[in-house]
Amino acid sequence: MNQDYIVPDNWSVIEEGFEPAHVRSSESLFSLGNGAMGQRANFEEDYSGSTFQGSYIAGVYYPDKTKVGWWKNGYPEYFAKVLNAPNWIGIQIEIDGENLDLKTCKSVANFRRELNMKEGWYKRSFQAVLPNDVEIQVNVLRFLSLEWNEVGAIRYQIRPLNKSVNVTWKPYVDSGIENKDTNWEEKFWKVDAIKQYKNAGFIQSHTLKTNFEVVTFMDNQVFLDGENLNLQPAAVTQEESKVQLSYSVSVGQDQTVVLQKFGGYVTSMNHAVENLFEAAQNAIDRANQLGFETLLSNQIEDWDRIWQMSDITIEGDVKAQQGIRFNIFHLNQTYSGKDSRLNIGPKGFTGEKYGGSTYWDTEAYCIPFYMATKDQNVARNLLAYRYNQLEKAIENAEKLGFSNGAALYPMVTMNGEECHNEWEITFEEIHRNGAIAFAIFNYTRYTEDESYIPEKGLEVLIGIARFWHQRATFSTHKNKYVILGVTGPNEYENNVNNNWYTNYIAKWCIDYTVQQIENVAQKFGSDYTRIMNKAKLSQAEISEWKKVADNMYFPYSEEHGVFLQQDGFLDKELVSVANLDKAQRPINQKWSWDRILRSPYIKQADTLQGFYFFEDHFTREELKKHFDFYEPFTVHESSLSPCVHSIQAAVLDRMEQAYTFYLRTSRLDLDDYNKEVHEGLHITSMAGTWMSIVEGFGGMRVKNGTLSFDPKIPAEWQSYSFKVNFRNRIFKVQVSQSGTEIFVDGDQNIAIQLNGESFEAKALLNI
Amino acid sequence: MNQDYIVPDNWSVIEEGFEPAHVRSSESLFSLGNGAMGQRANFEEDYSGSTFQGSYIAGVYYPDKTKVGWWKNGYPEYFAKVLNAPNWIGIQIEIDGENLDLKTCKSVANFRRELNMKEGWYKRSFQAVLPNDVEIQVNVLRFLSLEWNEVGAIRYQIRPLNKSVNVTWKPYVDSGIENKDTNWEEKFWKVDAIKQYKNAGFIQSHTLKTNFEVVTFMDNQVFLDGENLNLQPAAVTQEESKVQLSYSVSVGQDQTVVLQKFGGYVTSMNHAVENLFEAAQNAIDRANQLGFETLLSNQIEDWDRIWQMSDITIEGDVKAQQGIRFNIFHLNQTYSGKDSRLNIGPKGFTGEKYGGSTYWDTEAYCIPFYMATKDQNVARNLLAYRYNQLEKAIENAEKLGFSNGAALYPMVTMNGEECHNEWEITFEEIHRNGAIAFAIFNYTRYTEDESYIPEKGLEVLIGIARFWHQRATFSTHKNKYVILGVTGPNEYENNVNNNWYTNYIAKWCIDYTVQQIENVAQKFGSDYTRIMNKAKLSQAEISEWKKVADNMYFPYSEEHGVFLQQDGFLDKELVSVANLDKAQRPINQKWSWDRILRSPYIKQADTLQGFYFFEDHFTREELKKHFDFYEPFTVHESSLSPCVHSIQAAVLDRMEQAYTFYLRTSRLDLDDYNKEVHEGLHITSMAGTWMSIVEGFGGMRVKNGTLSFDPKIPAEWQSYSFKVNFRNRIFKVQVSQSGTEIFVDGDQNIAIQLNGESFEAKALLNI
Repeated sequence: MNQDYIVPDNWSVIEEGFEPAHVRSSESLFSLGNGAMGQRANFEEDYSGSTFQGSYIAGVYYPDKTKVGWWKNGYPEYFAKVLNAPNWIGIQIEIDGENLDLKTCKSVANFRRELNMKEGWYKRSFQAVLPNDVEIQVNVLRFLSLEWNEVGAIRYQIRPLNKSVNVTWKPYVDSGIENKDTNWEEKFWKVDAIKQYKNAGFIQSHTLKTNFEVVTFMDNQVFLDGENLNLQPAAVTQEESKVQLSYSVSVGQDQTVVLQKFGGYVTSMNHAVENLFEAAQNAIDRANQLGFETLLSNQIEDWDRIWQMSDITIEGDVKAQQGIRFNIFHLNQTYSGKDSRLNIGPKGFTGEKYGGSTYWDTEAYCIPFYMATKDQNVARNLLAYRYNQLEKAIENAEKLGFSNGAALYPMVTMNGEECHNEWEITFEEIHRNGAIAFAIFNYTRYTEDESYIPEKGLEVLIGIARFWHQRATFSTHKNKYVILGVTGPNEYENNVNNNWYTNYIAKWCIDYTVQQIENVAQKFGSDYTRIMNKAKLSQAEISEWKKVADNMYFPYSEEHGVFLQQDGFLDKELVSVANLDKAQRPINQKWSWDRILRSPYIKQADTLQGFYFFEDHFTREELKKHFDFYEPFTVHESSLSPCVHSIQAAVLDRMEQAYTFYLRTSRLDLDDYNKEVHEGLHITSMAGTWMSIVEGFGGMRVKNGTLSFDPKIPAEWQSYSFKVNFRNRIFKVQVSQSGTEIFVDGDQNIAIQLNGESFEAKALLNI
Repeated sequence: MNQDYIVPDNWSVIEEGFEPAHVRSSESLFSLGNGAMGQRANFEEDYSGSTFQGSYIAGVYYPDKTKVGWWKNGYPEYFAKVLNAPNWIGIQIEIDGENLDLKTCKSVANFRRELNMKEGWYKRSFQAVLPNDVEIQVNVLRFLSLEWNEVGAIRYQIRPLNKSVNVTWKPYVDSGIENKDTNWEEKFWKVDAIKQYKNAGFIQSHTLKTNFEVVTFMDNQVFLDGENLNLQPAAVTQEESKVQLSYSVSVGQDQTVVLQKFGGYVTSMNHAVENLFEAAQNAIDRANQLGFETLLSNQIEDWDRIWQMSDITIEGDVKAQQGIRFNIFHLNQTYSGKDSRLNIGPKGFTGEKYGGSTYWDTEAYCIPFYMATKDQNVARNLLAYRYNQLEKAIENAEKLGFSNGAALYPMVTMNGEECHNEWEITFEEIHRNGAIAFAIFNYTRYTEDESYIPEKGLEVLIGIARFWHQRATFSTHKNKYVILGVTGPNEYENNVNNNWYTNYIAKWCIDYTVQQIENVAQKFGSDYTRIMNKAKLSQAEISEWKKVADNMYFPYSEEHGVFLQQDGFLDKELVSVANLDKAQRPINQKWSWDRILRSPYIKQADTLQGFYFFEDHFTREELKKHFDFYEPFTVHESSLSPCVHSIQAAVLDRMEQAYTFYLRTSRLDLDDYNKEVHEGLHITSMAGTWMSIVEGFGGMRVKNGTLSFDPKIPAEWQSYSFKVNFRNRIFKVQVSQSGTEIFVDGDQNIAIQLNGESFEAKALLNI
């Protein structure tokens, strides 16, 4: 771990003491989001120290012109960038004419941040002595309403401690923001109009190229010792891209003055452009009608409902408890499942690195979490997102020379178009197609929703099967089909031949698609006819697919009894990570790319990812052999790595190792394992953390329609519990050092197994 | 071929008729250079049609900030760009107030360009009717003095054909130029001072970052019907980065008015910065003293001297004759060998694509040409260029994780630093190190200069041997040393394992270095001690090198009886180029990169490059097998490809194929085979053209100190002849359909073979 300043607490993320070097890290960790918008935990008041100002609106992006050194045919012209959005939280504050800025204060004491995950709010408090020797106590509370997701609220409280002062509040909305992550240092926003009315300020601006129209708004009230002063702004400043109000209040020593600010966004994704100002005013009116306290208590209730279903409790290990709740909290802040146009960006609302909102992370890591802790429509919406982008995936494959409806989903996307531009990833990391098919299988297996495949999924599967059929080539030398020139999940290998994972999932995709075609033919005749006609798919073509699937080559080492990650893996210098000089780690920061590529080191589960997806295709002995062969070469320099290894270590009864991996995945950002938390959080891997408890320690599996558990518990824990929604029944699994209890709501006539034995459900207990 | 508008001629490149679509192509083909500066064949007068204005100064470059999509550790921070330099050829011309611009003329007739390669000048003539109906005859002669290489001369002649007119000449010098090839669209030049004195104009400007100071100058004289009017400028315009003079002359119908313009550059590479204006004035004074005609006749004499030695004659095939002279002419325009700081840029003075001046092309393709047609010091200077950059090569290797004096020469460089930034090339195309060692061997073998290795070469060899020793790794699986993750000469493969060519030349480098260490130890004791101490090289280390060389792995196919280009080559779909749909060609313009990579198609000789370098390590039968296996997969999409294949086809007595390859290499630019001549010429491959005659058809080899020839002649030719300087004796080889004659100057007691028989040299004949 690289930092440990976060105070362990069961329900909150807490920072104590003001340390400027932690500001950007904490801005990430204390981020707020409500599925529709979010922002880093930037200070509301001015801060002249090092900071990374970031506000984000779900689904609003900018197609930045691709930057490459050397253009390759097939590169996308644009890279969909996550957009830093106008800032509505800003409040400049003058105390007796002195600007409040923690960087310039004579002293800052009792600085404390708390992100209360249980109730969904963020609080900051401190005492500061300003350059003019005024001493003040500050408390700031901020939250983004889950219920009214266009609105956020700030209550900024100041109490002068050593004298009576004049406080000038200057709340503002600013659209003059620039992306941290931009290819050409261009501005992405253009201001259309600025309005000001009573205590409110509005800026209408649109994104260049994509023309998302957004009205960013604020409304302000000033209170003294709890009483609304009903002030009107003493001054209004409108600049090119900023509107700022000003309120001055005389505040006696030990009196408390409060600026209450509501703010947020209304966008053309959800309103007609001509109604945006009205929609913004409506949002303000609603917030004012409800009032800060009611909005807050609703917020607490809404978060309580989320936790009712998705909480995981851990007793006896507060850091582990804090870690899992931190992960679950941010997942829920990032994606609510309400809007099928949205997806789960790798940094959520906490940063803008990577760009794009959708990676294979969604299918491989996130779907299990949303599937088990939300209504199953949420997972279905995530699948439908890919169905809605099928045509673009077919176009994408055509750009790369494929035909006949073969679909290659993009590595990174915002709207279905590829927006990544490294040939070794964009063109070669094609296993992503496999995860998208696997998610359809996984969803169907888990939910028993038989309608998705005939309605939507089968068309996606056919496009994917066609891709694999065309992408594999026949090696006369091997007398097998081979898949040349790929990058597997282990991105520390590029352009390799016969990556076992890719070959395996390619074969599986074809087999599964053929099976589903037969199933739909039998059970959903009219869907079958519609799909076969639309796809112009013949039995002859299916036979060609099968030839590839039935004769796929898998690299294997007789000597080691393992499948090889790719052809030639054994030619490497097989020095384990344990024997690698620590000064060389992390290798992605210390080594040139060629050195990484020719090393045996594995960024994240690759062959083992296949053993995770297809666990029941292999024996426990086989898993053990492969784990023992590959894990020692694994550097876990991807956030997606520890979770899969934690699950497999648990399967292999290596609880100490499983626990170490668990801590690493659950506290990846809290403890900043990868030295990059200041850039934002690793949102998608947080779902992997959830899996490492539910599927790893809890041993949850679904086989042949039966839900089973094989619970284990780390020695460090007294107990843990989690809930899953399985086929619209809720199960609570309570595991302690002395045994496991399972509770189920509603009808108990459902096949369940515990440790391989069929299970008799106890009465529903408080769920 | 993609164009055929160049008129076949033995000694000149000729274009007849004005075709705006050909302008940019002709600007490349008719380029002038004198080793120190050069420029594209841009019109002197204004031209509002499509044009690519380009002037270049040898050695003057700009380190453009590297542009990549995704930064990798080890990438160089800067890319040394060939710099588009200030323009001194420009002359705006007004005829009765109407600007002369071929794009706007009512008609253009008898347009003709001629690049007279024999005499080293470029002439353009045309008749035009201007928008104001004035009809004029124009003749322009331009050359860049070989003798006074800071000066060029233009004689611009106008004759009004249908009326008396007023001609206003507005010659200028312009430093406001921009690079065509720039990463960030920045300007590379900053103007320091502009001066004007009598008929001269000067601009002093410097390159940003590198601070090369350059004074670009001009001096003008106006003549009417041959008489110098001794005009002073009627007006002088000084703009921010331009100085322009103006002369007005009344010209009667059928009178001839001439603007004679001398211009050029003096730079801080050759003069103290404070003396630059004086140096420029001196250059002008000297040119004026000599006068245009004397400069021109000197030019003709100087080119005659070059041709005396380097000409290749071909009888019976004017296109072949024009092709080879075009190649030899541009090689001599690009690099004179006078200045060891310079090298042979891939586009010479004809364009700015690629950047950098030095590639492995110099060692692999260019050295044989300069070695055989120039004083041997020229080739020695080219070797010394790398010796002078040895420290940078060691630093470069250190950046990639190597140590102990291992040297990796850059893929592309201007000053010894790497300036390429694609990981698959920069970090992996390491075979370039082998060519640099091979050139030392080749030079020593050819010249018998025993001093270079003890003085300089051995240190380079040691750095290179150390690199290979460290770069190879031991495969316990193969029980051999392997070289993983490389790009071979065939850049249509990236990150492959055990590229045969790379492995072979790595082993050879070590063996050769060890042998040279022993040789220096025996013959040059003090050098030996100095070098071993400087390099801190022990016998123990040498033994470690030998282990690698003696146990190197070479991929081989028993089935085909050939070495494999790399591991796994046989897994590809081995469809020959002949069976590839023509609509898919060239694949580098039609296919995405992954598709190219997994195909069997070869950009340029790879395994066969090894058979070219090390021909005598293999039997003719082995060469035949490898040629027959690899050539059918070769798409020759590198300009460096046809020449090697031409040589090998000739060895294999496949004269028809050899001739086809010869035409392709010699007329690559004239006929624009690769559809890119408008970007500039392929200078380095021109040396390959020379090799394809001398080593291919002529069969020249040096073995054990003996010069041998095995001449063949294409059916299309009556005869051909070439000369080589071998160990300071000049041989002329005259091959006709009826036999071969060899002439030698000076002492004839030298071992020579013709067709395997020892040869009795005839008396020197006119050489």
